[in-house]
Amino acid sequence: MKKFVNEPSNFVHEIMEGLVLANPDKLKYVPDYNIIYRADMPRDDKVSIIQGSGSGHEPAHIMLVGQGMLDAACPGNVFAAPPMEYCYECTKLMNSKKGVLHLINNYQGDRMVWDMAHEMAEADGIKVGVVIIDDDVAVQDSTHTVGRRGVAGNFFVIKACAAAAEQGASLEELVALGNRVNSVVRTMGVALTSCTPPAKGEPIFDIADDEIEMGIGIHGEPGRRRAKLQAADAIVDEVFQAVASDLPFKRGDQVSLMINGMGGTPISELYLLYRKAALNCKNSGLEVVRSYVGNYCTSLEMAGFSLTLIRLDDNLKRLLAAPAEIPIRVF
Amino acid sequence: MKKFVNEPSNFVHEIMEGLVLANPDKLKYVPDYNIIYRADMPRDDKVSIIQGSGSGHEPAHIMLVGQGMLDAACPGNVFAAPPMEYCYECTKLMNSKKGVLHLINNYQGDRMVWDMAHEMAEADGIKVGVVIIDDDVAVQDSTHTVGRRGVAGNFFVIKACAAAAEQGASLEELVALGNRVNSVVRTMGVALTSCTPPAKGEPIFDIADDEIEMGIGIHGEPGRRRAKLQAADAIVDEVFQAVASDLPFKRGDQVSLMINGMGGTPISELYLLYRKAALNCKNSGLEVVRSYVGNYCTSLEMAGFSLTLIRLDDNLKRLLAAPAEIPIRVF
Repeated sequence: MKKFVNEPSNFVHEIMEGLVLANPDKLKYVPDYNIIYRADMPRDDKVSIIQGSGSGHEPAHIMLVGQGMLDAACPGNVFAAPPMEYCYECTKLMNSKKGVLHLINNYQGDRMVWDMAHEMAEADGIKVGVVIIDDDVAVQDSTHTVGRRGVAGNFFVIKACAAAAEQGASLEELVALGNRVNSVVRTMGVALTSCTPPAKGEPIFDIADDEIEMGIGIHGEPGRRRAKLQAADAIVDEVFQAVASDLPFKRGDQVSLMINGMGGTPISELYLLYRKAALNCKNSGLEVVRSYVGNYCTSLEMAGFSLTLIRLDDNLKRLLAAPAEIPIRVF
Repeated sequence: MKKFVNEPSNFVHEIMEGLVLANPDKLKYVPDYNIIYRADMPRDDKVSIIQGSGSGHEPAHIMLVGQGMLDAACPGNVFAAPPMEYCYECTKLMNSKKGVLHLINNYQGDRMVWDMAHEMAEADGIKVGVVIIDDDVAVQDSTHTVGRRGVAGNFFVIKACAAAAEQGASLEELVALGNRVNSVVRTMGVALTSCTPPAKGEPIFDIADDEIEMGIGIHGEPGRRRAKLQAADAIVDEVFQAVASDLPFKRGDQVSLMINGMGGTPISELYLLYRKAALNCKNSGLEVVRSYVGNYCTSLEMAGFSLTLIRLDDNLKRLLAAPAEIPIRVF
């Protein structure tokens, strides 16, 4: 296992310590429940927005905690849902008179713990709203999922809801908004390589030197098919077709286009992929009004990418362009 | 070769096309000379700042072109200096009454082409200033270098000079500032894996599954020693000691600390490395006033990192905190 790691059981804990050391004024950390939260939250005049899933998808979600994005995150171990008590304690910690919004990727483990935390928090008198994210078009059901998986499209649900929350939206409005965003966002991913969780010490699946997995899940779940490695443009064509035909996106639609890296793919290759995806948008009559190229939802050091399209309206364009400040910044 | 690539000879060109497609209002591209430049530059009331080195180090330098950073970049092929005419044409294109600043990493190939472009531009009546960057403490001379190599510390020279240029500094002031920044910044890197330039199709060096290269160059040049893979904290300790003892940094210094990814290392591991480096700063009496964690100067998909320290004064703190807007953004 070639990784920068100490004792594998401390992997997640040490990442979170590093994140808080790098942002001492803005973030706080509760080690007992793996909670990273904004130092200036909760506030009774703003709905709190929280998320917690398995680790290994960084920057999702601990590095998306900040003004105009998440208020708190409580990850589990690598590729494992957080324990229920993390979700419950995180909800209590972020309790606001306006309520707490749970954003949940559609995996059985995540849904179970958040459902229980939701019930317990409501029994405590906390107002809780829920949005389930399931943007992955690759497969219908999957290894850890009934229905579609939640992947990089998650970013848009967070950004839109968080921007609206900063502007004073109610919990009910945010649930409606989150569901609406989820209904117009579609994603599919591809893997060139597997990845190795530190505690496991070996790759989560095998893939030959000349193969790619089309429709990969973010925990290595199988996709649509195992294919021979092709030229980048041909790979983009297949992924674009799968994503664009699903909603379907139509000539004249205004969209955002995201090329998300899976963790081990250099940004140079992501822009090379973006090039073909942007040309495909143009040829399909889709107008890209805002682009995203980088690592948003990863699988440790996996080499791969996902392509996300989201159909925009004026309100959504405004929300996506709202200011935000998160720990991972270039400057 | 497992990469997202089409025809290898089009690799750099297609990345640049993708970058401009993603930033149609802000960037322009001159394919004949591989120049990416700010659509709103040059201006006669601001010194233009340009850089061009081999490709494969993205975001350096094409993705650092934007307000408050570079005005233009003209990369060569992967790990190859740009042809002299790219440098000359880039200088002419960015000609300003206040002059053009060349920021050059200390490699023989880069210095030669930029020296020639400098002479030719001056013969045309263009005012040119030069700053050479050589922040890598690993080795004295190297495969492509007489003297020290220029690596991730480059970022700080760009940021400080660009901020001062936006505030109206003269070419002479910027040369003095750039040299001063370079004199207080120190870096050393480590590689877990090699990397594969698309046109070469195979790794640029071999490294065993249980080995790391301490002091790696950004083109795979040998470092100080080949070591057995150790715990992350032990690796950070060795790199930190090499960097901190070189200036040397002293108890009471205010610094910025950068953990730069080499391209294939996930951001989770970078924050785990940052944790130990930040603790070492604290134990050494160095006050970290601004932190940087991410990919700044990479080697394609290499797994590895570098650690940079820079000693700050009030002026430098102000310049590093100045606003900037570059193509690679999270939102």
